[in-house]
Amino acid sequence: MSNQVKQKNNFSMGKLTSLLVLLHNTELVKEVEQELDSRGYNYTVGKVGAMELSKVVAAVETSAKNNHIINANSYREVHALYHAILEAIQGVSRGTLQLGDILRTVGLTFSIVRGNIDSSGYGGEWISVCVYGTIGAPKKGFEHDALGFGFNHI
Amino acid sequence: MSNQVKQKNNFSMGKLTSLLVLLHNTELVKEVEQELDSRGYNYTVGKVGAMELSKVVAAVETSAKNNHIINANSYREVHALYHAILEAIQGVSRGTLQLGDILRTVGLTFSIVRGNIDSSGYGGEWISVCVYGTIGAPKKGFEHDALGFGFNHI
Amino acid sequence: MSNQVKQKNNFSMGKLTSLLVLLHNTELVKEVEQELDSRGYNYTVGKVGAMELSKVVAAVETSAKNNHIINANSYREVHALYHAILEAIQGVSRGTLQLGDILRTVGLTFSIVRGNIDSSGYGGEWISVCVYGTIGAPKKGFEHDALGFGFNHI
Amino acid sequence: MSNQVKQKNNFSMGKLTSLLVLLHNTELVKEVEQELDSRGYNYTVGKVGAMELSKVVAAVETSAKNNHIINANSYREVHALYHAILEAIQGVSRGTLQLGDILRTVGLTFSIVRGNIDSSGYGGEWISVCVYGTIGAPKKGFEHDALGFGFNHI
Amino acid sequence: MSNQVKQKNNFSMGKLTSLLVLLHNTELVKEVEQELDSRGYNYTVGKVGAMELSKVVAAVETSAKNNHIINANSYREVHALYHAILEAIQGVSRGTLQLGDILRTVGLTFSIVRGNIDSSGYGGEWISVCVYGTIGAPKKGFEHDALGFGFNHI
Amino acid sequence: MSNQVKQKNNFSMGKLTSLLVLLHNTELVKEVEQELDSRGYNYTVGKVGAMELSKVVAAVETSAKNNHIINANSYREVHALYHAILEAIQGVSRGTLQLGDILRTVGLTFSIVRGNIDSSGYGGEWISVCVYGTIGAPKKGFEHDALGFGFNHI
Ligand SMILES: [Mg+2]
Ligand SMILES: [Mg+2]
Ligand SMILES: [Mg+2]
Ligand SMILES: [Mg+2]
Ligand SMILES: [Mg+2]
Ligand SMILES: [Mg+2]
Repeated sequence: MSNQVKQKNNFSMGKLTSLLVLLHNTELVKEVEQELDSRGYNYTVGKVGAMELSKVVAAVETSAKNNHIINANSYREVHALYHAILEAIQGVSRGTLQLGDILRTVGLTFSIVRGNIDSSGYGGEWISVCVYGTIGAPKKGFEHDALGFGFNHI
Repeated sequence: MSNQVKQKNNFSMGKLTSLLVLLHNTELVKEVEQELDSRGYNYTVGKVGAMELSKVVAAVETSAKNNHIINANSYREVHALYHAILEAIQGVSRGTLQLGDILRTVGLTFSIVRGNIDSSGYGGEWISVCVYGTIGAPKKGFEHDALGFGFNHI
Repeated sequence: MSNQVKQKNNFSMGKLTSLLVLLHNTELVKEVEQELDSRGYNYTVGKVGAMELSKVVAAVETSAKNNHIINANSYREVHALYHAILEAIQGVSRGTLQLGDILRTVGLTFSIVRGNIDSSGYGGEWISVCVYGTIGAPKKGFEHDALGFGFNHI
Repeated sequence: MSNQVKQKNNFSMGKLTSLLVLLHNTELVKEVEQELDSRGYNYTVGKVGAMELSKVVAAVETSAKNNHIINANSYREVHALYHAILEAIQGVSRGTLQLGDILRTVGLTFSIVRGNIDSSGYGGEWISVCVYGTIGAPKKGFEHDALGFGFNHI
Repeated sequence: MSNQVKQKNNFSMGKLTSLLVLLHNTELVKEVEQELDSRGYNYTVGKVGAMELSKVVAAVETSAKNNHIINANSYREVHALYHAILEAIQGVSRGTLQLGDILRTVGLTFSIVRGNIDSSGYGGEWISVCVYGTIGAPKKGFEHDALGFGFNHI
Repeated sequence: MSNQVKQKNNFSMGKLTSLLVLLHNTELVKEVEQELDSRGYNYTVGKVGAMELSKVVAAVETSAKNNHIINANSYREVHALYHAILEAIQGVSRGTLQLGDILRTVGLTFSIVRGNIDSSGYGGEWISVCVYGTIGAPKKGFEHDALGFGFNHI
């Protein structure tokens, strides 16, 4: 296990963000959370199901604000998060940022992580968003996996 | 640990594909591989670094053929894989399928998984592709995480 | 005329699908239908007028299901058709999958064809969708021709 | 046959343009050409195979100029044609205007038609471009049908 | 000042269109208007705030018709303007033609200019649209500048 | 004139950035520069002509580094500028980030401005990029105006 922890020390913020959502609700996520805690990162995980893209954007934004990942009164921080969300949604929707307009719906779990990255050149804080779940027809089971990731300086 | 295995039995093909690439070169990936093996899935992991998108597409295609994930002589299978690759690349490039044209380069690890999904309605075989790595300026360290995922029937 | 039939034997599934919709409601379409019948292809033609893209997608999907071109209980088949529809709509909307959002409306006739393609490498069944009609302002006559085509393995 | 001709009188410029390319090299195309001639339309048909999109654009442009569909010395006409070509290519490439960059190649036949449309409100001349052929891997037979259409005032 | 006027004589239609909206409500715009007048150009300036893209398109179209920049009864002119508007909106929305769907709103000023361009090859009339304002969250101050420009023959 | 200056105090950073490039090489730009200076903003103006998009991106990046608008050794700053450049280029290319691939070339002047914005919520530094010039066929005079704008926190 100590070997695993050592490995996680090499994990980038983006990899940890992705594992946080992919391992959500499993035992394994605890190690991811411990690593995030040890780095002093702020993070949260939430869920949203919608046929309207605006609800997905709103759910991630609201979660980030309510869990104090970003300061809701700072446009600067809201702007950084917003573009990270758009990037993540592009991975989910692949090619066109649309859900109900093209008759599909999503059921998603998302993670948001914020913190300092020490690598030379990086400096300051960064924010990453990972979205994982299903996309498909508005009919139970007629859907498949979807995954998206966004990253920005904050 | 047995608890973890049970959880993995609930993991979708897409989640396993994503973990296969995200946990690559760690101890944890063994459990993912065991789960893939127990389901009789075919899979492989490869790497590619490039400033030309065509090299990324070619690397994933070649890896799938050389590792017998798809039959290189079946256009049907090549077509299924090709569209899954394009979907995955859309997550990496977010908005425009371009690398060198807009002065950026990637260093990516990719996983390809193929197998039956038994859920009602699904039937037959599906293929999923996950791509994880870095995207950024052609200068060491001036890059950030990127992640993409594609899924198709085959 | 026998010459024409011989020529049609060389027509690809995609060409027949396109002619099926372009020659709809003319005498000439009968030869196209005969060729489709002789190959054992399933096909149908329908119409939809809408300012909402979701209605276009739904109309093609419903027509394919009601006319038994695809099995509505197979997600695999629904998935194949869905991506073929999206491809076809991209030809109609050229650049952005939007109608009412950018104040335009469509009046479309569509064809759906499914069947085996025997060419070496192809194997199995494929599905193609062609959409032809008008796109333009929501004002009679203030519109022009539009055409789109999608193709997928099924 | 006279019935067919009567029907063609109801064919829009766009439908005639599409049939001109789809029926190319068949007996049936003669009736399409007769109808185009009877309306005083200028038209041409050409071919291009390429892995570089710029060659496709150039082939259509050059054909239009060499066959006097447009006046090569009028930027106004070149501009009208150029945007019609881009629209047509969007139908062929579906989602991203790329060929070799994403490792695919095309073998296309294209038609260009120019002329007056008399419908109320239309006035003046219009130009339409239809592109039909195959798109796919750079390997014989590993390709499928593709179709695109563009339309503009000139 | 005569020097400034001389310079404006070298300004392209597009530059004048852009300055018309950027200098709106300032003293400086008078010189831009004088230059437009001296060339015999038709122009107008309007405003629109919306979370629905269709309202933006409608506002520019309506303004162009009401101010006699285009003839509302000519589809040819409506078509030319429509594509110029779409181009301008692409600069504002950068990457996806969406506002409320991705939870953002705009407050825009737009200019529309129409007239002859005498440069060799150009011939005839052209139309240009410039849109300038703010885009952002539906919360006062949480928005930033946006600018877009479209150009077409008419 | 004092009236004009007062008005410029109300000009946003984005408006000043846009005017800096649109009024380049005219007398009027001096007032824009004075306003930028009075706010303590860093700025520069450059030119680039290219048929390859990567050269446009590189020219703006290099200019920003050489003129000390951004710190070339800070990935954080390079990342902020890079996304602002991509946004600006989207306005120029409208719909697809391509030049030579679709047989068009650009001759552009660009401005880059960086500085603090004091409005409530904004805080810290922001960067904006405006690109203005011509886009068209690789033939003198067969081109029209193009304009793009990008904005980011830095
Ligand atoms: Mg980035
Ligand atoms: Mg899918
Ligand atoms: Mg395909
Ligand atoms: Mg049009
Ligand atoms: Mg143009
Ligand atoms: Mg922004």
